[in-house]
Amino acid sequence: MANLEANRWFTEISDRDGSAFSLRVNKKLDEIQSPFQKVEMFETTDFGNLMIIDGCTMVSTRENFFYHEMMSHPALFSHPAPTNVVIIGGGDCGTLREVLKHPGVEKVTQIDIDEVVTQMSLKYFPELCESNNDPRATVMFDDGIKFMREAEAESIDVIIVDGTDPVGPGEGLFNHAFYKSCLAALRTGGIMIQQSESPLMHMPLLLEMRDAMLEVGFVDLQTLPFPQPIYPSGLWSATMARKDQKFAGFREQDVDNATFDTEYYNTGIHKGALATPNFMKRAFEK
Amino acid sequence: MANLEANRWFTEISDRDGSAFSLRVNKKLDEIQSPFQKVEMFETTDFGNLMIIDGCTMVSTRENFFYHEMMSHPALFSHPAPTNVVIIGGGDCGTLREVLKHPGVEKVTQIDIDEVVTQMSLKYFPELCESNNDPRATVMFDDGIKFMREAEAESIDVIIVDGTDPVGPGEGLFNHAFYKSCLAALRTGGIMIQQSESPLMHMPLLLEMRDAMLEVGFVDLQTLPFPQPIYPSGLWSATMARKDQKFAGFREQDVDNATFDTEYYNTGIHKGALATPNFMKRAFEK
Repeated sequence: MANLEANRWFTEISDRDGSAFSLRVNKKLDEIQSPFQKVEMFETTDFGNLMIIDGCTMVSTRENFFYHEMMSHPALFSHPAPTNVVIIGGGDCGTLREVLKHPGVEKVTQIDIDEVVTQMSLKYFPELCESNNDPRATVMFDDGIKFMREAEAESIDVIIVDGTDPVGPGEGLFNHAFYKSCLAALRTGGIMIQQSESPLMHMPLLLEMRDAMLEVGFVDLQTLPFPQPIYPSGLWSATMARKDQKFAGFREQDVDNATFDTEYYNTGIHKGALATPNFMKRAFEK
Repeated sequence: MANLEANRWFTEISDRDGSAFSLRVNKKLDEIQSPFQKVEMFETTDFGNLMIIDGCTMVSTRENFFYHEMMSHPALFSHPAPTNVVIIGGGDCGTLREVLKHPGVEKVTQIDIDEVVTQMSLKYFPELCESNNDPRATVMFDDGIKFMREAEAESIDVIIVDGTDPVGPGEGLFNHAFYKSCLAALRTGGIMIQQSESPLMHMPLLLEMRDAMLEVGFVDLQTLPFPQPIYPSGLWSATMARKDQKFAGFREQDVDNATFDTEYYNTGIHKGALATPNFMKRAFEK
């Protein structure tokens, strides 16, 4: 069988999926062991720069737009007028950049536990950090779980949970206690969105998340699949949960008239992401 | 870096993409060198059985539904009343099964050059071959290029080109001569659909295909992206080309009232696939 020379390829084995994904690398650019995790950076031959956290592919130059756009625009355009946005995690600052493209947003607070991720991103993904100095943005390094627990009640319009998988530092972002904090901190009609793994490979986890969101009192959910080339199966998802109100479409006209550019997202893509594949529908209806 | 033990993993290196994809295997089930290509079969730990042709992942039990459904239903439901369908390639018979789900289809002829592919599929993907004995189906093993060249003019409603990548036996399916044969064999309003690689990784090839289809005289194109977990980037596409007429939506009501099951495809998915991502729109408009 094909053999991947260890010094020419970065390989992430996804043990739970029985699959592995590799990118060919020119060289290793950096490696820092933070108090929380090991952050590595590679220059690849075809995907630009590549950030690895604790052995897992996180972000590449070439395809991060799918993830960052789908973690931000569907939630922001589903809310009638979001002004105060919080990002938990998101240390590469790509989601922050997308959120700040929305002229109506007045305040964005990003809380990532690990400053090293942002330091690496500033150096190797400067395009993702180009809005970090926007006066509306606050970039903090702290415990996002604690931040949400202590957040003022009914103060936030959209909470974006842009964390790693539910292992390591990201684990506490996938449970009832955290979802309760988020619900309390949202204003009426507010929306939480969280990356919710691969619908093809991780349906039990996705169902658990959805159940937990409803159990703490969110009244409506939408799970949006989207391409994610460097994560297992290439098909990923984000789940939106709404406080007090059902989802009622999104601001299509505002999307069509948006003054900013996107690589993936548009009205049709948003509608398409709401068209749940049959295998997901069946799993959700069980 | 992570190391994939050669005897526990099947790895496909995609040299042109600088990426590789691996599945963990329990054992090798079979291997036959046909006159055309080497066909191997593995039992994987998480994806069911896996067919490899000349070192490339082709079909797995777990996720082939994305591909087979998207290669058949969008084209068939975009045609007002397809009765005569031809499949070029498609030796695993998964596309054939989907086509035969359509009650209005009276005749399906499948022409794959390599009988070994179908023999392997009968043995290891029996579910894909469950309709092979449908009286409407003819399963032939012959040169699909020659078949199309000699096909009766204006006799076919939908031609599905379900071939491998444009290297090896599949190469002749990606050029003007072949597209001309297809155009001549289609009735007015007829539709050709062909797998058109990864829009993220292979845009130059996709553009070349689209240009060639228009150059031979097809009047309208639609390129539909869909998930394809075991192919490079996990995002694949199919391109539809129509004879004499522009595409004019699809038979939505017939999809909603369809008497057959699908795992992925539904009206929303079809509409979503027509919502071209911005990076593709820009490439197509150049």
